[in-house]
Amino acid sequence: MKKYSELTREELEALQKELKAKYKEYQAKDLKLNMARGKPCVEQLDLSMGMMDVLSSASDLTCDDGTDCRNYGVLDGIKEAQELLADMMEVPPDNIIIYGNSSLNVMYDTIARSMSHGVMGSTPWSKLDKVKFLCPVPGYDRHFAITQYFGIEMIPVPMTPEGPDMDLIEKLVSEDESIKGIWCVPKYSNPQGYSYSDLTVRRFARLEPKASDFRIYWDNAYTIHHLYDDKQDNLVEILAECKRAGNPDLVYKFASTSKISFPGSGIAALASSHNNLDEIKDQLAIQTIGHDKVNQLRHVRFFKDIHGMIEHMRKHADILRPKFEAVLEILERELGGLGIGEWTKPKGGYFISFDSLSGCAKDIVAKCKKAGVVMTGAGATYPYGKDPQDSNIRIAPSYPPLSDLVIATELFTLCVKLSSIEKLLSEKK
Amino acid sequence: MKKYSELTREELEALQKELKAKYKEYQAKDLKLNMARGKPCVEQLDLSMGMMDVLSSASDLTCDDGTDCRNYGVLDGIKEAQELLADMMEVPPDNIIIYGNSSLNVMYDTIARSMSHGVMGSTPWSKLDKVKFLCPVPGYDRHFAITQYFGIEMIPVPMTPEGPDMDLIEKLVSEDESIKGIWCVPKYSNPQGYSYSDLTVRRFARLEPKASDFRIYWDNAYTIHHLYDDKQDNLVEILAECKRAGNPDLVYKFASTSKISFPGSGIAALASSHNNLDEIKDQLAIQTIGHDKVNQLRHVRFFKDIHGMIEHMRKHADILRPKFEAVLEILERELGGLGIGEWTKPKGGYFISFDSLSGCAKDIVAKCKKAGVVMTGAGATYPYGKDPQDSNIRIAPSYPPLSDLVIATELFTLCVKLSSIEKLLSEKK
Repeated sequence: MKKYSELTREELEALQKELKAKYKEYQAKDLKLNMARGKPCVEQLDLSMGMMDVLSSASDLTCDDGTDCRNYGVLDGIKEAQELLADMMEVPPDNIIIYGNSSLNVMYDTIARSMSHGVMGSTPWSKLDKVKFLCPVPGYDRHFAITQYFGIEMIPVPMTPEGPDMDLIEKLVSEDESIKGIWCVPKYSNPQGYSYSDLTVRRFARLEPKASDFRIYWDNAYTIHHLYDDKQDNLVEILAECKRAGNPDLVYKFASTSKISFPGSGIAALASSHNNLDEIKDQLAIQTIGHDKVNQLRHVRFFKDIHGMIEHMRKHADILRPKFEAVLEILERELGGLGIGEWTKPKGGYFISFDSLSGCAKDIVAKCKKAGVVMTGAGATYPYGKDPQDSNIRIAPSYPPLSDLVIATELFTLCVKLSSIEKLLSEKK
Repeated sequence: MKKYSELTREELEALQKELKAKYKEYQAKDLKLNMARGKPCVEQLDLSMGMMDVLSSASDLTCDDGTDCRNYGVLDGIKEAQELLADMMEVPPDNIIIYGNSSLNVMYDTIARSMSHGVMGSTPWSKLDKVKFLCPVPGYDRHFAITQYFGIEMIPVPMTPEGPDMDLIEKLVSEDESIKGIWCVPKYSNPQGYSYSDLTVRRFARLEPKASDFRIYWDNAYTIHHLYDDKQDNLVEILAECKRAGNPDLVYKFASTSKISFPGSGIAALASSHNNLDEIKDQLAIQTIGHDKVNQLRHVRFFKDIHGMIEHMRKHADILRPKFEAVLEILERELGGLGIGEWTKPKGGYFISFDSLSGCAKDIVAKCKKAGVVMTGAGATYPYGKDPQDSNIRIAPSYPPLSDLVIATELFTLCVKLSSIEKLLSEKK
């Protein structure tokens, strides 16, 4: 297969004509497909229907320690749920707080509290002239939206297959006191599916930030979200590593069961040092009387323990794996060797990251949309929605049925080809 | 019965001796009773056990509009839940947002957002030198805790059986631009069980605050929490009244099902004008992907509609009414005519408010505690925990079994007598 860049003007134009005809055929199909968000599909949701049966009117909704889950109280979560999510997050149960249904909301609250009250005695960020966050890119749009909402300046840091550029991070945080945090999705990252190397995690734990109120926002969203039994990424556990490095308070670790049980009806958790947790609980006691303990109990009774959760995740993997493999197979078949795009091949998580020729991403997404396939907006993976190269596109294979996914991905590759040809032709002018 | 103030020193001392002996008998009983918080009792919780059966693995968890409650999405609540809680809150369904399990958390978020982002374009409160809130007293300690947490200065406003002192409120808000809000529990108020009169609500709706970002925080916590079928308080609906008064954006109205279904596992809601809701949704879209829709659906399927909810509340009333009546009967029997205390006789809600002789409340609560009965801390019903008269005590009859409640209330009246005698004797010196 010849690279597109090696084709003559005439060859490109002939190819373009042929592909345009194909594109029109797709448009005639009146497709309505969506690869935009990391939503589980119906078959995945069905896996958790048993959750609706574990509690009944005949159930005793009392915890082992005697807590009646039906009444007010218990700020940091029932013991059983702490233990389950601690095992999931690879931390001790007393380093954890169980929240409501949304880890995003926990992250939001963490930033909001730092803005209004500072971090362990520091000046509230809202009183500072400038607050900055480091944002490994491409990254998660909803992270960036939180920091943007609070007027925090976002500094992009390039990702590598080993994690973000640690040389740059070490330099920036040691020099600039206004840098107060960094957004990380350390395992099966959003959107690339990269997992931070052992060395990267160790360097994170040993950061020497100029700001005492700097924290690592460690969103371990895909901690047990493997696609394979035999090929799994494994991370150095950051809380323990920070403790070993003498930086026990450096990190907030977030997770939830959103992509394990039901998205929106799961339970979220934050793990951190006792110093951090004490401060957070002071706020929590003002915010609420407690989170939904019945739902915490429901999760515990359904999964029983971390082994039950892991077995449950194998069922998710059995559904997701063929979808990821189908997308990767089509990308390779249609685009392999053409030199007009690169993509990641994750072993877990919810996304495949695609990089087009520079300046083509917005156009590719627009072309897909015009033919009835919605992708994540180009630029969404960058702070302020601005991808300087206009090249990154997040592919979310989880939601559509396999047959739809095949059509959508084939159309996507067609749009990549069309857009790339347009770019190459315009450069030849 | 002679008033204590009319007793001679000798009579008081003789009575004191007798009562002290009784108090020692109580101490010997090693009681562990709690009348501190408005917690439903076990029998009340049992009323909602059917909620655990309405959804099963055989259920279709799809809304009427096709929304799959098991997946991500729907920021402001499923339509069915909006309709149910709109009926409960007496507002149109499109004036409502359904939240997670805690209306307190919604109030916290509302204050937090005003601090960081202002109100409909106003200067963020965190950028102002001074922000003040009006606090009808006695009131709800958790309200005061939120404003205190954000450094908002709290100005007490006296309550009357018709609601807070409206003359004072109208004067203060029209003069002082730094007054940004007022905490209200308008129906069966916490702790007095007073309901605002029609005139009070109408005057609220017609406030002319100097601050454009002034809002009424209308915590309608006990909207359908009647004790009687035949004697019920009824409020002018504040949202509609504000609209009629030409002040549509003046109020945030809060409610939840915490004391209807399971506390901590219910659903909360905020009702307000579209202008206010639009601003709130902008924030909500950053905070979360959505609240727990499965739990919203569970509530709808269990209660079916507002009639089902009202019938359910009659069962709560059947459990609570004898408890309130027992406390009131004992207060009347033991303290009636003695001139050492006054108390309210609510027709709904969760509390009875007791006012002792000035300077006795702390001592009464301490005496109760020493004999094994925990009351709400004296002062808790005032901002900063400071009751200037040291006289108000909140009695929460809901949680203890009736037999315990009788003992606890009898002990309470004994402590009131002892403390009052001590005060009267010290004044006679």
